[in-house]
Amino acid sequence: MSGRETGRQPKYQRIAAELRAAVEAGRYGPGDRLPGENDLMAEHGVARMTARQALGVLQAEGIAEARKGAGVFVRDFRPIRRRGIERLARARWAEGRSIWSTDIGDRELVVDSVEVTEESAPAAVAAVLGLGEDTNVCARRRRFVLDGKPVLLSTSYLPAGLVAGTAITRPETGPGGTYARLAELGHGPVRFREEVRSRMPGVEEAERLALSAGVPVVLIARTAFDAEGRAVEVNEMVLDSSAYVLEYDFEA
Amino acid sequence: MSGRETGRQPKYQRIAAELRAAVEAGRYGPGDRLPGENDLMAEHGVARMTARQALGVLQAEGIAEARKGAGVFVRDFRPIRRRGIERLARARWAEGRSIWSTDIGDRELVVDSVEVTEESAPAAVAAVLGLGEDTNVCARRRRFVLDGKPVLLSTSYLPAGLVAGTAITRPETGPGGTYARLAELGHGPVRFREEVRSRMPGVEEAERLALSAGVPVVLIARTAFDAEGRAVEVNEMVLDSSAYVLEYDFEA
Repeated sequence: MSGRETGRQPKYQRIAAELRAAVEAGRYGPGDRLPGENDLMAEHGVARMTARQALGVLQAEGIAEARKGAGVFVRDFRPIRRRGIERLARARWAEGRSIWSTDIGDRELVVDSVEVTEESAPAAVAAVLGLGEDTNVCARRRRFVLDGKPVLLSTSYLPAGLVAGTAITRPETGPGGTYARLAELGHGPVRFREEVRSRMPGVEEAERLALSAGVPVVLIARTAFDAEGRAVEVNEMVLDSSAYVLEYDFEA
Repeated sequence: MSGRETGRQPKYQRIAAELRAAVEAGRYGPGDRLPGENDLMAEHGVARMTARQALGVLQAEGIAEARKGAGVFVRDFRPIRRRGIERLARARWAEGRSIWSTDIGDRELVVDSVEVTEESAPAAVAAVLGLGEDTNVCARRRRFVLDGKPVLLSTSYLPAGLVAGTAITRPETGPGGTYARLAELGHGPVRFREEVRSRMPGVEEAERLALSAGVPVVLIARTAFDAEGRAVEVNEMVLDSSAYVLEYDFEA
């Protein structure tokens, strides 16, 4: 975009655009220190406030982050490639493999907390699952951590009546996980819908994902349908947007 | 999430959580005015700064927006449902209920600017298209507007040698658009890859999409492959995240 900037921009925006272009061109890589306020003041002949604003723009965009007393650094963006479609192929979970294991090379996505409760369904979830308003769901709340950093909050809702007495109601769902258990019940998923949005995190989300300032979350609502077209699971996911690239491959 | 809040939260966060829950429950609808600072001070017995912080949280999350001199209002979120697969597919899925209600209805997505240039390919695009570094591409830059609000910036890159002399190099590509022209060249797309990310917008993106503060952008990089598996187009899209729900439907 830098070639499309105009001369009418404020100076700090022009400096920010230059720094952004340098990061995009790879002249500053992940973890590299960007020029400091003094460097920018000398190089561009600007006041300290202008230099600070320029660095502030890159931080607000999530490209860089300030480390106290050390300067401003290019954020280390090593995203996880999450393949929405290939990932869920029946062959995979039927073999008992984890949904996530193919996505991340040798880095390991780990569940660091699981909480299973029976509770009344949120209205939007009840509507999708075709449940009455006072019907209970089994809610499985998990947090996933990569390289020690939380990256994903997942809340899976299933009709309580459907999954009662199965391992789905326990923290450990057994080989193949929830989908293998649903298949044993005759309700194995054959079709999925993923709805994707993005917004800034709420306070609790920012805390639980240890998000830096200026990093949005990606929301995925995944609905699993069985062979009869019944929605058997809604999984609401909240992702650290700086940690993920979602990929969907499909035919025309 | 409000049921999971704890008593250790700062007061402004508890007030923000209450307001957020009220919005989610529909007690304040899109465009409604939220309680003002004076209302919150009286109702919760807090200082003006605490009330202001609480309203600030909702603005930072993109749930509400301040209108000068008038107060803080629930943002009018009427997102567009963009069906990544169905949209491009020959067959349609059966209808079903969705988690996030959307409203395309009779609103029309309009292109309000088209700019076609021949230029050297950005490095990442050249790599995907399998072009050498100094090879030219045809770049089609479009902005899409909905109800007078810009919602999408799209830059489509195609190998200049492939599309030379066709309507793809002109602002008006003719019936069926770029893909119909590619098909006439024997390179009609048969497979697509969409890669999805999110981040805060750059200054120019925020201006061109007229984004409110605290609204991230969703990035989609779509690659179109022809029957021989050759990448024939890369389309880099920048979406107003508050305007879109992306949907992907697929079989297990």
